[in-house]
Amino acid sequence: MSQAPARVIAVDTHDIRFPTSRELDGSDAMNPDPDYSAAYVVLRTDAADGHEGHGFVFTIGRGNDVQVAAIDALRDHVLGRDVAQLCADPGSLFRDLIGDSQLRWLGPEKGVMHMAIGAVVNAVWDLAARRAGKPLWQLLADADPEWLVAQIDFRYIADALTPEAALDLLRRGRAGAGERRARLLERGYPAYTTSPGWLGYDDDKLGRLAAQAVADGFTQIKLKVGADLDDDIRRCRVARAVVGPDIRLAVDANQRWNVDEAIRWTKALAEFGPYWIEEPTSPDDVLGHATIRRAVAPVKVATGEHVHNRIVFKQLLQAGALDIVQIDAARVAGVNENLAILLLAARFGVPVCPHAGGVGLCELVQHLSMFDYLCVSGTTEDRVIEYVDHLHEHFRTPVVIRDGHYTAPTVPGFSAALRPEAVERYTFPGGTYWAADPDTQKGQAA
Amino acid sequence: MSQAPARVIAVDTHDIRFPTSRELDGSDAMNPDPDYSAAYVVLRTDAADGHEGHGFVFTIGRGNDVQVAAIDALRDHVLGRDVAQLCADPGSLFRDLIGDSQLRWLGPEKGVMHMAIGAVVNAVWDLAARRAGKPLWQLLADADPEWLVAQIDFRYIADALTPEAALDLLRRGRAGAGERRARLLERGYPAYTTSPGWLGYDDDKLGRLAAQAVADGFTQIKLKVGADLDDDIRRCRVARAVVGPDIRLAVDANQRWNVDEAIRWTKALAEFGPYWIEEPTSPDDVLGHATIRRAVAPVKVATGEHVHNRIVFKQLLQAGALDIVQIDAARVAGVNENLAILLLAARFGVPVCPHAGGVGLCELVQHLSMFDYLCVSGTTEDRVIEYVDHLHEHFRTPVVIRDGHYTAPTVPGFSAALRPEAVERYTFPGGTYWAADPDTQKGQAA
Repeated sequence: MSQAPARVIAVDTHDIRFPTSRELDGSDAMNPDPDYSAAYVVLRTDAADGHEGHGFVFTIGRGNDVQVAAIDALRDHVLGRDVAQLCADPGSLFRDLIGDSQLRWLGPEKGVMHMAIGAVVNAVWDLAARRAGKPLWQLLADADPEWLVAQIDFRYIADALTPEAALDLLRRGRAGAGERRARLLERGYPAYTTSPGWLGYDDDKLGRLAAQAVADGFTQIKLKVGADLDDDIRRCRVARAVVGPDIRLAVDANQRWNVDEAIRWTKALAEFGPYWIEEPTSPDDVLGHATIRRAVAPVKVATGEHVHNRIVFKQLLQAGALDIVQIDAARVAGVNENLAILLLAARFGVPVCPHAGGVGLCELVQHLSMFDYLCVSGTTEDRVIEYVDHLHEHFRTPVVIRDGHYTAPTVPGFSAALRPEAVERYTFPGGTYWAADPDTQKGQAA
Repeated sequence: MSQAPARVIAVDTHDIRFPTSRELDGSDAMNPDPDYSAAYVVLRTDAADGHEGHGFVFTIGRGNDVQVAAIDALRDHVLGRDVAQLCADPGSLFRDLIGDSQLRWLGPEKGVMHMAIGAVVNAVWDLAARRAGKPLWQLLADADPEWLVAQIDFRYIADALTPEAALDLLRRGRAGAGERRARLLERGYPAYTTSPGWLGYDDDKLGRLAAQAVADGFTQIKLKVGADLDDDIRRCRVARAVVGPDIRLAVDANQRWNVDEAIRWTKALAEFGPYWIEEPTSPDDVLGHATIRRAVAPVKVATGEHVHNRIVFKQLLQAGALDIVQIDAARVAGVNENLAILLLAARFGVPVCPHAGGVGLCELVQHLSMFDYLCVSGTTEDRVIEYVDHLHEHFRTPVVIRDGHYTAPTVPGFSAALRPEAVERYTFPGGTYWAADPDTQKGQAA
């Protein structure tokens, strides 16, 4: 009697919100009072191994319930799937989700619906990596190039990256991967820190945290800018004085400017030697970024945390609109779409420096950069993953930063699982934290 | 004793779904079986006049509940607003909704959250027009140019359209508006019809409906293409034979192609003299559209129904990527953002031919084109509004088509209100239609 294959038996969703607005952690020119949140999904199966798959969308508070509703709308696509087949080919589900024509209308391939797909797809990769007994970066690095190429949707990007070109990149990328892996395990992957630079911090706190960052081994820090030019000049001066000339100082405007403002403002900060200007304008404005980049060189232009899919990244690269590709693990449609973006960046020779922070974005994206190092770009030169020291304690396998580097995870999975205590405490509005909070009764976090 | 000002006292939302997939009405290469739906919102006030404001997002079935949840997430911004102030300046609410930094993260300015803002903003315009006793097109045409300019968010578009340039366009646009208005009331605004061309129709039905369209006075029809080239060639041949050489024949690929496919396929249909190729590829691909346009001329390139905001329209115009701007009344953030798009199109001298059909899109968008004719472009030359003969019977003031023209609405408002019977019958899943449908029990429309 043959045994029935294991199936996905539940797609559990959770509205998790952390009250970060109360300390102005995470404050910037566009987002003055975020409550860092996660629309969190857990796939459960009836396999004997008991493994689950975890994923999430990062949001900053209000609307996290809408994001949960969007994940719920995908449930019927996932329930009942054969677990072994699903994990052997996460791309099969990815294609079904992207291809649901009725849901596609709500994007297409952008916004709430697209991020929901990303959470579910990432949960499948988490499950697949756990079942394989490998951290995700290793599962990807061990995979056949042909299989990886089959995980990618080339629709709308084939004019810049064909499957053949992708396969060629991945085959060539393997040369020397063994040595790089040893180095990764020994040294980790370089990080930079945004913790000193939140807009809500005063100069003393900025200076103190900047000095601490250098002492902790970071060679790049980042400051939020864009609300007030005089303040920005003063804060850049404080930071540069503290860190000295050899530490890279990036600045981040969080989309505050029009094209001409971005150019003027960035030039006004040029005396402090900013390494990159991040999100100078709307993430949708490919041509605007190209104009800004031409005007502000040698300051580099970085963007990507709000770039909603591979098609916009393709154009940013085609237009010569950016120097740094900032992938985000939870904005696009999961690992599958990020594979396409890593390969597009490699094809154009542009370094990838991921966006992280938020809730669990560091935990996720480290796997993608480590895979990029091992098998795509083959280098960490001019590459750094953002690091922010928020909320890691709520994850079961939080990132480990050592001497300004992300330590390579060794626990199987995608590092996406929250601790049960965090779910219990910060579920909105019924968790123990929010139930005890008088403002919650108004139906609004913070 | 002064009386308290009237307030918004309710933001009622409804998940309305019509079972259109059962007849393959609306079928195209990307959307084989849509259930045309509306995430419908009704603003109620305590004003003595009893007027309501109606708006909606058009979707094609699954996920309409997510869209409703997104509108619900905006409720707190609207409840309690002073009705007179709100209607005197819909832009005040528009800015607050666009500017909610926590909700903005879910886009920004795209997808489910952005369309929800559009529905609420459009409901305010409906309310404002009802209270003013004017159809919306007339309210806009009677407004001061300065006031109209103040309704627009110029962020991210000022490099292509400044407030000063917008004001100049609107001031110049008024010359001759009185004569145009008389002509509009007499003749209406030209339409074209997509009703013959759905992909699910056989050649007989296509030929019969195409002949009927010409008999009904339409001078342009549209065919869906993109699933199979041989079928498309055959269907274009049938249509061209029926309508003769003088009727414009547009074709619509609904984003099915990559850039090179779009070029190849469009050239293969060139012998039938297509007037425009619509949505040849992803709506996000500005540069791809520019490449296609250069290659397929003199066939015109049209897109816009899925272009998610003014920033992408700006770039399509800057890049010379399209010949026809196809605004949609319910994809962007409502009338305010569409004012920006109409003015951008005018600035670049590109005609606007709106997308319509769906549920109520004809009802809405006619007002915008009529305003464009009276006060912006000043012409209907090479301009047509799409017309599809679906679902109008469910609206309280359905469009009236006469001799291939939209008749100018005279009833106050934005023509957005559904009939109460439609709401009662097609609310999903509890309305009388769906409650009686066995498939509804599976939790899925159709």
